[in-house]
Amino acid sequence: MTETLSNTTFEELTPGRAAEYTRRVEERDIDLFAAVSGDVNPVHLDEAFAADTVFRRRVAHGMLTGAFVSAALGTVMPGPGTIYLGQTLRFQRPVHIGDTLTVRLEVTARREDKGIVTIACEVTNQDAESVASGDATVLAPAERRVVPRPATPRFERKP
Amino acid sequence: MTETLSNTTFEELTPGRAAEYTRRVEERDIDLFAAVSGDVNPVHLDEAFAADTVFRRRVAHGMLTGAFVSAALGTVMPGPGTIYLGQTLRFQRPVHIGDTLTVRLEVTARREDKGIVTIACEVTNQDAESVASGDATVLAPAERRVVPRPATPRFERKP
Repeated sequence: MTETLSNTTFEELTPGRAAEYTRRVEERDIDLFAAVSGDVNPVHLDEAFAADTVFRRRVAHGMLTGAFVSAALGTVMPGPGTIYLGQTLRFQRPVHIGDTLTVRLEVTARREDKGIVTIACEVTNQDAESVASGDATVLAPAERRVVPRPATPRFERKP
Repeated sequence: MTETLSNTTFEELTPGRAAEYTRRVEERDIDLFAAVSGDVNPVHLDEAFAADTVFRRRVAHGMLTGAFVSAALGTVMPGPGTIYLGQTLRFQRPVHIGDTLTVRLEVTARREDKGIVTIACEVTNQDAESVASGDATVLAPAERRVVPRPATPRFERKP
């Protein structure tokens, strides 16, 4: 059986509608994010450098949290057919290896004439502390789509 | 000889100070971003699905552009010692495989009392079209740092 992705249409995206996406941050994720972005800032990659900062140990890139917000919007709500128009993010607390982040989305406003929806995004860790928050603006899908879920591309760390 | 990363301190981050970061978007980057975020929305991964949208072909995740902005801030200006406080982004045009993106950063405001700097971020493609823009807010480094540049983690695509 093929797993599917389905979407939430503009009509269904009424204020208060909410959804969640949870993901654990692995050391590998920080390394993958550094690889894809080119952001090799040592606070993310160098344990000795990080030990000498206010963070005391390696922290995840703030935008890794942004990437999880993107995944929540792109795969959970609204899902396939969404066009991402904008995002604001405030990074409120550091994220470390082993943290489990939950992105909570909640529709806060919609423009009937344009099909545009504003979605409040709050990202919390396993201790229910807010690590990031902001607002997404999307052009919501007009039509129901149910599609096969694309396989997650697989990568192997090289020495 | 080890390559180094150096930073730009709060004192040096005066309005108008600018810097750039350029990166070509490879198919591999879209796949890496899908892997690290979990965002397997088919408009990014499924050529057939994408062909049937306004984009006509696979588009990069908007937040991949956000990841490049993070890299510009973390490795070019201000660089090591920066604490990322917030980001706004408007996604203005699709980004496709093969596009070369340039992130241009320019200091627009600073708060002397807090060490906080606002940096305008504009991302353009090889045709000088703006694909994304917004503002970063950072706590700027107080002290000069020159550190060894961490090696970019390497990954190999698995079938």
